[in-house]
Amino acid sequence: MPTNSATYRVQGMTCDHCVAAVTSELEALEGVRQVDVDLASGDVRVTSDEPLTDEAVQAAVDEAGYEVVS
Amino acid sequence: MPTNSATYRVQGMTCDHCVAAVTSELEALEGVRQVDVDLASGDVRVTSDEPLTDEAVQAAVDEAGYEVVS
Repeated sequence: MPTNSATYRVQGMTCDHCVAAVTSELEALEGVRQVDVDLASGDVRVTSDEPLTDEAVQAAVDEAGYEVVS
Repeated sequence: MPTNSATYRVQGMTCDHCVAAVTSELEALEGVRQVDVDLASGDVRVTSDEPLTDEAVQAAVDEAGYEVVS
């Protein structure tokens, strides 16, 4: 079974607490195996068992208090 | 019994998570009644039953991951 990976651009993260908040919300999504955040660029790579819907990812990031911009 | 208030300048806070971390550490100091943080300026006002030592305040801010600069 392949793993799936998608990279989103998230706006508004300014420090490691922000990274932790986004990571925590995304890791709570079913099937997510790994979340890698680059604070400087805002790039968030999500690796999961099955492809995630953009809506699910956007909702999780929004819950953390940030916004997916691409 | 008067309350005591002192304002420190803290460097490095970038978001509300940072404010929460600094506030939490300072509120844990004995006798602290209130902590008010202005994120934009970095001003942190600490109100306490007795005057706090600068060392105690610096240690608490350091514990949160930031630095008192004045």
